[in-house]
Amino acid sequence: MTYCVSMLLDSGLVFLSDSRTSAGVDQINTFRKTTVFEIPGERVIVMLSAGNLAISQGVMNLLAERLAAQDGHAPTLHNCPNMFEAARCIGDALREMHMRDGEALKAQGVEFNASFIVGGQIKGEPPRLFQLYSAGNFIEATRETCYFQIGESKYGKPVLDRMITPATPLDEAAKCALVSMDSTLKSNLSVGLPLDLLVYEANRYQTDQLVCIDEHNPYFHMIRSSWGQKLRQVFESLDDLQWGGGDAQHPLCVTSSRYERMRKITHPGEKIV
Amino acid sequence: MTYCVSMLLDSGLVFLSDSRTSAGVDQINTFRKTTVFEIPGERVIVMLSAGNLAISQGVMNLLAERLAAQDGHAPTLHNCPNMFEAARCIGDALREMHMRDGEALKAQGVEFNASFIVGGQIKGEPPRLFQLYSAGNFIEATRETCYFQIGESKYGKPVLDRMITPATPLDEAAKCALVSMDSTLKSNLSVGLPLDLLVYEANRYQTDQLVCIDEHNPYFHMIRSSWGQKLRQVFESLDDLQWGGGDAQHPLCVTSSRYERMRKITHPGEKIV
Repeated sequence: MTYCVSMLLDSGLVFLSDSRTSAGVDQINTFRKTTVFEIPGERVIVMLSAGNLAISQGVMNLLAERLAAQDGHAPTLHNCPNMFEAARCIGDALREMHMRDGEALKAQGVEFNASFIVGGQIKGEPPRLFQLYSAGNFIEATRETCYFQIGESKYGKPVLDRMITPATPLDEAAKCALVSMDSTLKSNLSVGLPLDLLVYEANRYQTDQLVCIDEHNPYFHMIRSSWGQKLRQVFESLDDLQWGGGDAQHPLCVTSSRYERMRKITHPGEKIV
Repeated sequence: MTYCVSMLLDSGLVFLSDSRTSAGVDQINTFRKTTVFEIPGERVIVMLSAGNLAISQGVMNLLAERLAAQDGHAPTLHNCPNMFEAARCIGDALREMHMRDGEALKAQGVEFNASFIVGGQIKGEPPRLFQLYSAGNFIEATRETCYFQIGESKYGKPVLDRMITPATPLDEAAKCALVSMDSTLKSNLSVGLPLDLLVYEANRYQTDQLVCIDEHNPYFHMIRSSWGQKLRQVFESLDDLQWGGGDAQHPLCVTSSRYERMRKITHPGEKIV
C-alpha cells in the first residue's frame, strides 16, 4: 500500500508520500511516489501516486515521453497553460495506460487501480490541487476541503480533520502531515519509510523545500517519540470515567437506569429484539 | 457502517459500540449493536455486531430461540461450559444464517457480510474475548493483541495502538475506547450516536457498569471537546519544522543535498525513473 497526503493552503502547498510497495507480504520494495515537474520561475507541478506500480510508472513515462517529443500538438506538463490542463494531461496518460493494459489486467483478474494527487502553480494562477481517480477523472481541492489523501488514508485522517484549515501556516501543515504519516506507519505495516516531503510556498515557482526522510532523520524521530508521549499525557489529563452519582462533574450515567435500552438476556424465552 | 471495539485487560473487559446502520445515505437508522447474555453470579457474555443487519439480527434470534428451546442437546449461551463454546454457538448460528440466506443474497449480488465480537466470563475461566468472521470461524485475543475492532476500524486504531496494553486499568481503557470512537465519529458520517458502553470487572459475573451515551452525555461531551482542544495544544507544543542549518535541534535536512533521490524533471528529455 501507500499513504500520500497533500494540502492546499493560503500560503502554498504541502506534499508528503511514503515509499513502500508491496505485492504480498513477501514482496516489499521501496519506490518513490513523488515526482516534480518544474520550470524554475514559471511552474511547479508535483505528482504523488498510489495503486498499481506498473500503471503509475507507465503514466510517468508517458508524461516524460511527451515532454521529450515536444511536437507542439499535445499539451505537456511543461507547456500546459494552467493546472486544470495539467490534471487533464495526467488523466489522459492514465487513460492511455488503461487502453494499453486494461484488458490484459482484467484477464488476470487484476483491478486497474491507480490514483494520483497533482498540485502546483503555473504563472498566472494561484496554487491548485487535484485528485485523480483510476478513470482519469478528477476533483479539485477547495477552501472547504483543502486536503487530499490517496492510499491507506483512514488512520491518518482524524488528525488532519482536527488541525488543517486553509489558514494553517505551511510549516505547521507539514508538521501535521508528518504526524498523520506517523499514525499511519504505526498502524499499518504496508506503509513505510523513507518519506518524501515537499513544501511549496505560493508564488515562488520553484521548489527548494524538499527532503527525503529516513529512519535517522532527527526531526521525524522527534515527532515520532514526542507525539506518542505527549498524546499519552493528554490522554491521562482527561478526566477519568465518572459513572455518576456524588459530585461527578461530567457524569457518564445521567439517567436513573443504567440499562436504558440495552438488550440484556438474563432468562430463557426472553424476547431479544 | 458500524464501529465496535472491545479490549481484554488484566482487570476485565471493555465493550463499546455505535448504533448507526445505513443502507445508502438516504436510509439511516439507529439499531443497537450490543447484546448481553447473563446469568448473574455465573456468566456474562457480551456480543457486538457489524455488517448486514438482517444477518446479525437473524443470528441474535437464533441464539435466543435456542435459549428458549432448552432441549438439552444443542449448547446455548446460557449453558455452554466455556467462552470457546460460546464463540462456537455464535459461529454455528452464523452458519445457519448462511444456509438460510446465503444463496438468496448471492442471487441479488449482496455479499454475506457479518462479524461479531464476543467476550465475557463463565465461572471456572478468566475473561476471554473473540472475533468472529462471516464464515463463522473466529480468533481469540491474547496479551500481545488484546483488543478487537469490527466495522469502520481504521480511524480509531492509532490511539488504541498507543494507549492499550493488558495492564491498562478498566476505566482508562473505557476512556480510550471513547476517544477512539470520537475520532471515528469525526471522520466518518456512517458511524453515529448513541453509543453503548459496557465495562466488565473480572470475576464479578454480572454487568452493572453499562450505559447508553447520547449527544447530551456530559462525560462524552467533555471527551469530545477536551480531546480535540488538547490535541491541538500538544500539536502546537511539538517543535516547528526546522529545515536545518544554524542551531536546529532536530533538523529536517541532514544531508547537504535537499534533492536527494527525489525525481525532479526540469527539462524535456530528462529520464524519469
